[in-house]
Formats: sequence, structure tokens, C-alpha cells
Amino acid sequence: MIKVAVVGSTGYVGTEIIRLLINNPEVELKYITSKTYEGESYSSIYENYRDVFTEVCTTKDLEKIAEEVDLIFMALPHGLVSNQINKSILEKAKVIDLSADYRLKDKKVYESWYKTEHGSPERLEKSVYGLCEKNRKDIKEARLVANPGCYPTASILSLMPLLGEDMIEKNNIIIDAKSGVTGAGRSLNLGSHFTECNESIKAYSIGSHRHTPEIEEQLGSLVNFTPHLIPMNRGILTTSYVNLKEKLNYRDIKKIYEKYYSGEYFIRLTKENIFPQTKWVKGSNFCDIGFKVDARTNRLIVVGAIDNMIKGSAGQAIQNMNIMFGLKENRGLEDVSMFPI
Amino acid sequence: MIKVAVVGSTGYVGTEIIRLLINNPEVELKYITSKTYEGESYSSIYENYRDVFTEVCTTKDLEKIAEEVDLIFMALPHGLVSNQINKSILEKAKVIDLSADYRLKDKKVYESWYKTEHGSPERLEKSVYGLCEKNRKDIKEARLVANPGCYPTASILSLMPLLGEDMIEKNNIIIDAKSGVTGAGRSLNLGSHFTECNESIKAYSIGSHRHTPEIEEQLGSLVNFTPHLIPMNRGILTTSYVNLKEKLNYRDIKKIYEKYYSGEYFIRLTKENIFPQTKWVKGSNFCDIGFKVDARTNRLIVVGAIDNMIKGSAGQAIQNMNIMFGLKENRGLEDVSMFPI
Amino acid sequence: MIKVAVVGSTGYVGTEIIRLLINNPEVELKYITSKTYEGESYSSIYENYRDVFTEVCTTKDLEKIAEEVDLIFMALPHGLVSNQINKSILEKAKVIDLSADYRLKDKKVYESWYKTEHGSPERLEKSVYGLCEKNRKDIKEARLVANPGCYPTASILSLMPLLGEDMIEKNNIIIDAKSGVTGAGRSLNLGSHFTECNESIKAYSIGSHRHTPEIEEQLGSLVNFTPHLIPMNRGILTTSYVNLKEKLNYRDIKKIYEKYYSGEYFIRLTKENIFPQTKWVKGSNFCDIGFKVDARTNRLIVVGAIDNMIKGSAGQAIQNMNIMFGLKENRGLEDVSMFPI
Amino acid sequence: MIKVAVVGSTGYVGTEIIRLLINNPEVELKYITSKTYEGESYSSIYENYRDVFTEVCTTKDLEKIAEEVDLIFMALPHGLVSNQINKSILEKAKVIDLSADYRLKDKKVYESWYKTEHGSPERLEKSVYGLCEKNRKDIKEARLVANPGCYPTASILSLMPLLGEDMIEKNNIIIDAKSGVTGAGRSLNLGSHFTECNESIKAYSIGSHRHTPEIEEQLGSLVNFTPHLIPMNRGILTTSYVNLKEKLNYRDIKKIYEKYYSGEYFIRLTKENIFPQTKWVKGSNFCDIGFKVDARTNRLIVVGAIDNMIKGSAGQAIQNMNIMFGLKENRGLEDVSMFPI
Repeated sequence: MIKVAVVGSTGYVGTEIIRLLINNPEVELKYITSKTYEGESYSSIYENYRDVFTEVCTTKDLEKIAEEVDLIFMALPHGLVSNQINKSILEKAKVIDLSADYRLKDKKVYESWYKTEHGSPERLEKSVYGLCEKNRKDIKEARLVANPGCYPTASILSLMPLLGEDMIEKNNIIIDAKSGVTGAGRSLNLGSHFTECNESIKAYSIGSHRHTPEIEEQLGSLVNFTPHLIPMNRGILTTSYVNLKEKLNYRDIKKIYEKYYSGEYFIRLTKENIFPQTKWVKGSNFCDIGFKVDARTNRLIVVGAIDNMIKGSAGQAIQNMNIMFGLKENRGLEDVSMFPI
Repeated sequence: MIKVAVVGSTGYVGTEIIRLLINNPEVELKYITSKTYEGESYSSIYENYRDVFTEVCTTKDLEKIAEEVDLIFMALPHGLVSNQINKSILEKAKVIDLSADYRLKDKKVYESWYKTEHGSPERLEKSVYGLCEKNRKDIKEARLVANPGCYPTASILSLMPLLGEDMIEKNNIIIDAKSGVTGAGRSLNLGSHFTECNESIKAYSIGSHRHTPEIEEQLGSLVNFTPHLIPMNRGILTTSYVNLKEKLNYRDIKKIYEKYYSGEYFIRLTKENIFPQTKWVKGSNFCDIGFKVDARTNRLIVVGAIDNMIKGSAGQAIQNMNIMFGLKENRGLEDVSMFPI
Repeated sequence: MIKVAVVGSTGYVGTEIIRLLINNPEVELKYITSKTYEGESYSSIYENYRDVFTEVCTTKDLEKIAEEVDLIFMALPHGLVSNQINKSILEKAKVIDLSADYRLKDKKVYESWYKTEHGSPERLEKSVYGLCEKNRKDIKEARLVANPGCYPTASILSLMPLLGEDMIEKNNIIIDAKSGVTGAGRSLNLGSHFTECNESIKAYSIGSHRHTPEIEEQLGSLVNFTPHLIPMNRGILTTSYVNLKEKLNYRDIKKIYEKYYSGEYFIRLTKENIFPQTKWVKGSNFCDIGFKVDARTNRLIVVGAIDNMIKGSAGQAIQNMNIMFGLKENRGLEDVSMFPI
Repeated sequence: MIKVAVVGSTGYVGTEIIRLLINNPEVELKYITSKTYEGESYSSIYENYRDVFTEVCTTKDLEKIAEEVDLIFMALPHGLVSNQINKSILEKAKVIDLSADYRLKDKKVYESWYKTEHGSPERLEKSVYGLCEKNRKDIKEARLVANPGCYPTASILSLMPLLGEDMIEKNNIIIDAKSGVTGAGRSLNLGSHFTECNESIKAYSIGSHRHTPEIEEQLGSLVNFTPHLIPMNRGILTTSYVNLKEKLNYRDIKKIYEKYYSGEYFIRLTKENIFPQTKWVKGSNFCDIGFKVDARTNRLIVVGAIDNMIKGSAGQAIQNMNIMFGLKENRGLEDVSMFPI
């Protein structure tokens, strides 16, 4: 029985972690914290939990929490975690951080994109980037795992094999990404006011989105990354455009993806001329990948789809937990998409 | 291990049953049938099942299926089931029928509302109306269970205690119901073409919807039932208006509901002045109920919310299975709503 | 050329008035005011006006505005108008108030439902309730018109003929109303955060919505009014349930509606067994009305549909302007719904 | 008074043309044709026209129609127009064809992408590609105008100036396009069934969409064009990625766009760091364009937004009509977006 705490339990990421944990017989959920909702029952904040999960939010000190649990999920906005995590906490408990604080290895890159000082740069080296399919071995041994961003998860998984095999021009990568509105969280702002974003589409943060350096660091390449806001609750679709170094056909590319992913439960390759749709992964921890060679331009177009709240966030955190504690990797993540939902 | 078959597995009801069964360790899914998709892998029809559930659809004879399974889910349109079910099948296997064929006890009422002849009226008497919270005892012993309609489930659960206690005028009941578009199924028609129903609301089948006699039979009353189509995938909300026979306040009414439902896992009463929303039940088998006494008019307004595909269909069928086979009633139905989805 | 000002021009109601006025050759838009956006170009607030309408928002004093215009549209929240309007202003300019401040004739009723003091109860008597189809004559002469609420517009137009002819039990009226999210305005709150209301439906303010006394005053009856929030931008549908005093059929009822509405351009009666849908009126100033006699219960169900931002707000204000200034009543309101939008 | 006919008046394109024409005092709508709905009143097909436009659909012979009108809008699927248009018709009436039949100059390219024989290749040379901002002069003189495709309109307008000034690598152009579901028309298919496309996003026709050669011919370049389906009714957003030949900054690029578009009423350039959103153009004939130089990769990202049914189809057809008949170019196209709708 793994004892866990969820710090920052009342944001969309926090509530998704809780949903994935409450029916898990391997896990005991010991603490859920929230500054805003201290003392309130969880089911009065999220009424889907009515009569089922009625724990009360605390603001207990992190050091003390660490003494009583095996694992802490940090579901706070970036900038708040790097100041709180310290050696003593990490000796007592493992930590999976869902913020951006430990995702980038270079303090300067972090500070230039996130416009805030990093609170514990000395831990950047030892923290592990928790993209399970890439760093499984290191995650197994890690005390501090940086759970990947939603866009980077879909982007990196889509392209990693191609770069690993040196098949594409590594500094000519375009990632056109589309996300549902849960990606913007529960905080109120005009951009996610229903009548402002419903029935419309926009690009945002062109050339300046903070997930860009994360993708670049993991892929070892230079990318153009453009996110778009889609009027739907969940799901990310990435459409990536890369230049093939030589003439390759569908089967050639397929072999490369199979080499990397044939043993991966959560990566599913679509059949030829079928492309991922977010509805087929929504509610699940799967990442679906499909691609098309455009022979006319010798470019490869790769489409990746995930549920941004699951494989792009809480689900991948559970997957990391499973790896860190020696459980079956899909434990608690067995659901296929509930279609149509 | 219960051996089951799903007949008509490729409609929305069929696929929801399958989703709820595939991770259930108590169940072995032996046959899935489909006329349209015979010989095709299920995951080529619903790609959310890719690499996870790849069984092939058959058209095996129902008699033969019955020999090899303990339970058959019939997920066909009304009119097709009553001709297929016979004594011999029911001796071999139990049947949960998700069509309307065995919901009404009176053949004439059925034929007048459904405009088709009933194929086996002799079985109407012994079939059990599978509203679990109402007929649990009979369901336990039944060979043939008629799974309730989606609207009736929300409507009857909302009002049953009031009628049971004789608190309201039984022939002055108005049920204004709202449903997501999954209720219309997967068959193509202009009314569920995206650009025709998105961003719009309509009432339909006013005074003539087939769920009316089902609600009336179960409640023993006369009702005005008006369904509306809402531009969302899932969920039913019913707003019911009833005349109180005497002056009652919130607490009086609450006691009545608690008397009926305090032991019911799947019925959740909201707190005073909080009313059910479909998002809090979507993806779950819960039915949330809330109400308000309008002292000015001495009327009670009751709001009920369910996921039409789960408590209103496939989930309630599983709940019926659990009762019929002595399993824990919420086995395989533990999920709370995945919010926001 | 009518000179007009729009006070409170940057809310959803304000911007809709502006949209309806800027291409109107009979109108000169002299002032648009906004406290929040003083000094900003209108097209930087609403970018749909880019290069087309780039006026700057002012905070000019209302007295001074009144000196330079013929008509002031007050598009402010309730409670802010009754303190600003005075005799001197009304002598200089006519006023159409889109808030609730002058809709109710009884100060006490206003103060009990709106929980705020009324700033100029002495003007309640002379102000005219601007439901054009009901009070056209008085509107013509009025200096101060109270533009009706969105729900009341649909509700009253749906039921007025029945009460006028004494055909129904006047204190047994149920109005189940459904509105798009624009009804909640542009102010941020969790209830209209995209991911909180998208793909869900809820009832709210049961038995306590402020439009209740407005409907009751106009209909001279007691009503149960229940509003619901629908995941769409625009549109209101009301489904009303009334008890017929005697047996009447479709044609009987039709005659009554035709008696009242045959000369009304903006009221359209649907054909038998066709019911209004909000999509057919969205973007237009029409109110569509359809009904069904339920002979089994001797109840009549009436469905009304409007665009809440147009006939339910800004459009009706323009219609009032047209009446007050002797223009053709549909001037500037010629659009049919832009379907599908 | 221009006499016009709309052939194929009951599809989404046809109905949008009608909506834009019925209030136009310069136009007399003489015939509307429909095979499917012959003899039916238009307002029984599209009930938004109730009481307003109740003309009856005919199937009158095209030759005879041509004798009585000045202009024919052909709103039929591709492949049906090139067989019907002939010399005699064109001598009697001008034609604006909204299908793809005359968009491509090369018969072979047409036949290879559209998989059908072209019925009158001899007319390809003289027909004019009706992108108003590009071919205004020729449109003025044309008898037969090929109204551009929806995606090409947004794509070409976004990129035309850059190619005109030789600023970018002309064979390295990536256009990632997103469209609302109206683009798929009113014909029923599973892909536009509400519950199949709502709350999901997908790419489709990767490397094979028929608008690709149209874009390439007009831009004189090689492109990767990838369309996506967005769960909304209307709107197209294109995100284009091009390689700058030399280092250029925002102002440099801005000058180029202003050179081409400063006199264009329907092209609006957004301000620096503001990017087009479909909501700002929906319901209008505008094309909004914004861009960002990504100095790190020396790539330019250009975002274009149109209403696919208006500037991408019916609105541009009206604009073409205005040019062909010497009317003011924005006659009947004065609306700004009705936001929020």
C-alpha cells in the first residue's frame, strides 16, 4: 500500500489525480491539501465526488506530510514547487512534480522562459524528466520526477523515434498543436469564458510558448511550436511536419516507430491512412500516433493525440508512480476512452 | 466467471456495455454480434479499443449463443427483440433487453405507442422491469429483464418516493426533460447532424414520446412528458413539477427521499439549494436528485440527473447483471464522473 | 437622423446594440461610454469591429450626453440606472433602459427581488414596459422605456393571448426556460467558465429568479419559472405548461394566437406539429411560437424561441427606438437567422 | 436591378447566398432551384426563412433560366457544373460557379485530384479564378467566375504578398488549416454526426486534400496542406509556416502586407502580437491576417481567419457579383461579426 499526498488538490490536475487514485487498491490517499479550500470537504468543491470521496482539504506542512507518506504529487503552478522541495523532504518521500519547475535542466533556460527565479537549481541535475517511454530506467530510481507538460508529451512521443534514428532534419521541425480548454486550468480569465472561446479557434503564444524549450531539450532540436485553443474540454492533437533526410515510404517509417514502441502499452500506432483523433484517447492514458509521407515534398506529417489531463498530466503521473514503486505500469490506467463522451 | 454475449454490439448502447465489461474480472465476454459489421474487428469500428479489444463481430444464432453463455445483453432497436426471445433461449441463458420490447406490461399500450406488433406478449407478464432501486427483489429472480429507458430512469427515480408516500397529486405531473445527443444513437439523420443541432435547443415529440407510457405505468399516474435535445454528447436532466397535497417544507420532503434512498449507493441527494448538473454524474452510474419547494405555488420542483448512456442504459444493465448474478451491486460501476470531460 | 448614445457600451448587451446601429442610416451614434475602458478604441475591446468601428469610449456626464442626443440606451446592470435618470435628462432625451430598474411597477416587489433600493420610484408609474407587441401605443409616447428581460420576452409573448382570452387557469402556469450562456454576460465567474458549463446542463435559481415577478406582473398570474443553462452561446427556449379551462383543439388555439399576432412582423407561428428551435431565430429579432394540445391531460404546451441578445435584449431595444421615433418597426432588424451559425 | 438565379439552392452554400441576397435592394431573386425539394417552399426546408422568404424551389432548365436572369450562382457539388455550362448560357447570363469545376486551369490536374472527367475543359482558359483581391480586373470582365474554395481563400490571402515580393522559399510552405463542420455540408455522414465530431479534433485528407492544387496554382508554389475538423459550426483558421529568405522583422513584413492590402476593405491586418480568431470574422466577409517572425528559426508564422461560409464561399460570390456588375464591393456585405454568436 503506497501512502500518497496530493498537494494542490483542487485544480483540474489535482482532481484528476484524485479520481485516478480513489479506486486504486494499491494506494492510500493520506492527505489532500489546498490553501483556498482549507477545511472544506472535497465533494463540496467537486460535486462529482458526492458521497464517494468526502475528505477534507488541509494545509499541513510539507515536511510533516513527507514523514507520513511514500509519495507526494505536487500539483501546483510553476514557481511554487522549487522553493518548497528540499533534501529532507526527498529523503522521506518521493516526489512527482506536475509543475514545470524541474522539467528543464538548465536554470537559465527556465528563468528566461518562465520569468521567475528557480528556487532549487541544485536539484535540476538529479531530477528525472518523467516521460515514461523515454526515461523508464531513471524514473525507477528517482526521488524527484518532473512530470512532462501536456504539449511536450504528445510532441516528443510523436517525434522521438525519428530523431533517435537520425531520419529527419533536426532543426526543421514544425509542431502545430491543438488543445482543449482544460489545458488552461480552472482559474477564471476572459480567454476561457464560455462565450468567448466557444465556437471559435485561435492560435496563441506563437513563438513564445513555454513548452517550446521543453520539447527542444528532449528532442535535441530546434522547433517551431504553435499552440491553438479548441472549443472542447479535453484532448491534444499535434500535427508535426518534418523533412526526411532521404526518400522513405510508409513501411520504412512504420518500422522505426515499431522499433521504439512495439513494447509500449500506452503508445498505439494507427493503421495506414488512419489518423489519430482526440476522441479515441479521451479518458484514457493512451497516446495514438499516425503519420503520412508526402512524397511530393518529401516531408513526413505525424499526428499525435492524447488526453491532456491524463497522458498529458495526471495519468502520466500515475504511470510514473507505478514505475517508481514497481507496480504494473498500467495499474489504475486500464480505461479505454469512454466514447462518445 | 459470468459468460456473456452482447447482441447488437456496435450501436452506442452496445459499445458502452462492452466498455464497462472488458475490464471486469468477473465477466468473460464470449460473443459480440453485429449484422452490419460481421467479420470485422471491434477496434476497426470503434478505434478507442485499438490494441485493447480486438474481438471480431459475429452473427451467430441466438439459440446457439444461449447455449454457451449465462447472460445475453440485447442491445437492438425495439421491435427486433420480442421476435427473437423464446422459452428455450431463456431456459439456457438470462436476458437483459435494452430495447423497449418488454418494458410495458400491456401489449396494447406497447402496440399503440410503438406502432408495431409485439412478438411475444406472453412473456410480458414474467419479464421484470429492471429499475434496480424499485424492483431489486424481482430482478434477482428474473430470467428476462427489461432495462428501463433513459428518460424513465431519471423521471421515475426523481418522483417515486413522492408517489409512494401519496404526497402529490398523481395526475398532475409535468416532466420537462433534456437530453444530450447520444440519446439519438449512431444512425444518421438530419436532426443529429452536427451543424443542425449544435448551438441550438428544441423540444420534440411533445405529447407523443414513447417513454411517456413507461413513466406512467411505473408511477401509476398521468404525466406530461416533454423531451428536449441539448447540444452536448451525454447526460439527461429532468425538471419535474408536482403539486403538493399539503404544505410541506424542505425537511419534510427530504425525509421522504431519505426513507427510500438512504441505502441506495447510486442515488445521491444534493444539499439544500444545490441542484444536480449532468456534469457531476457524466461517466458514472449515479442518479443525482435535488428539489425545491416553491411555497408561493405549493409546488415541488424536482431535478434529476443521470448519464443517459450509463444509469440510463448500459450501466443500469450492468447493475441488473450484478443483482441477477449475486455480485456487489456497484461492481464495475465504481467510477465517479471524470470532470471536466 | 436620430442621435443616440450607448451608456455601458462594452458589455454583451452594449456591443449588440452597437452592432445593430452602426449600419443604420437613420442613426448617428454620438457617444459610447464605458468606465472600464475609458479612452480605449472600441475595436481594441471587441476586435470584430477592427477597421470598421473605432470610436473611443468616454465617461461623459449623462446630463451632458442628454443635451446632445435624442435617445440614450442604458446598458448597465440593474441598480445603477435608477439613480442616474432624472427629470432633466428625460426632458432632453428619451431613454431606453435595458436594466431591470423600471420593469416592475411596484417598488416593493423590485426591492424584495433585487435586494437593493430603487433610486427613483417616482418614475415607475410613467415608465413604459417596452414589450412592443403588448404596449406599442404607450411606447410611442414614452420618454422612458423599460426594455423587457430576455426570459420574460419569450415567456410573455408565448402566453399573452391565452390569458387575454381567459382560456387557461391563470395561477397554474409552469414555464421551463432554457438559455444560452450569453445570458450570463461577460463578467467572469466559475459558472460560465468554458470547462465548467460546456457539455452539461443545470437548472438554477429555482423558485427565485428575478424574472419571475416581471412575468407575473405582465401576465397577471402566478407562475413557476425555472431557468436552465444550456451549453451554447445564444438563444432562449421556453416550454410552458398551462391548464385549459375547457376542451380546445389545435385550431381553436391557433385562432387565438392569430387574433393577437397576425399583424405582428416579429412573431411567427410555426405549423402544426412543428416546434420552434432556437437556431431558426438566432441572429434575428423574431419570436417563434408553436404549441401542442395534450388531449390526455387537457393541458397546452407552448414553446417559444428567441435570440436572447436580440429580441430578448438589444434588438427589442431597437424595435422600441423605431416605435418611439416613428420609423418602420423592423428598420435595422431585417436579418433572418444566419443558419447554420 | 440584377436578376439572379441560385441553382442548387438548398445546400448550405445555396442558403447562405439566399440569405445574403434577400435584403439586397439591387437584386431580384428570380429562381431558386433544387432537385430534391422541387415544389417545396424554401421556408419549409430552412425554417429560419419562415414568413420572410417563401419562394418555391423549381427544377427549371438552365438554358431557360439564363434567358431570364443576368447572373446564375451555381451552388452544386463539383463535377455537375462543367457538364451544364455552355456557350449559349454564358452568352445570355453571367455565371459564378461555387463548385471546384473551373478553379484549376489544367484539366489533367483537375481530373487527377477530383477523379472525374471535366465536362468543358475548353472553358477553363477563359474562366476567371474569383479571388477578388487578386483578380479584380479580370473578374470585372468575366462571363464565368470560379469562386475559390474555402481553404484556398484563407491560405492564398495569407501568403500572396510574401510570394509576390519573393520574400520566402516558395517550395517550403506548410499550411495547417482548421475548419468548422459547415465545411462538410449538409449531406449526412458519420464524420459530421454530432456525437462523432463534437468534443474531438482530427486531421483528415493529409497530403491528398483537393484544395492543395488550387492553393499551389495560385501561389505558384509547392505546399503541404493539412486540414483539420474543429467542433464548431463556422470558421476557418490557417496557420502557415514559411522560411524567410533573409532576416526580416515585424515591420518589414508589415510593409509588404500593407502594400498589397491597404486598399482592401475585406482584408484586415491585426496589430503586432494579436492574432486572428475565427470569432472576430464569423458572420462577416472579412479575412483577418496576423503574423509573427520567429527569429530563432527565421521562419514566419502567418495566421489567417475567415468565415468559411461567407468570405470562403457565398460572401465572396456576392463580392464577385458586385465587381462583375459595377456595384460597391461591400454592398450587402456590410455586417461585422455578430459576437458572441
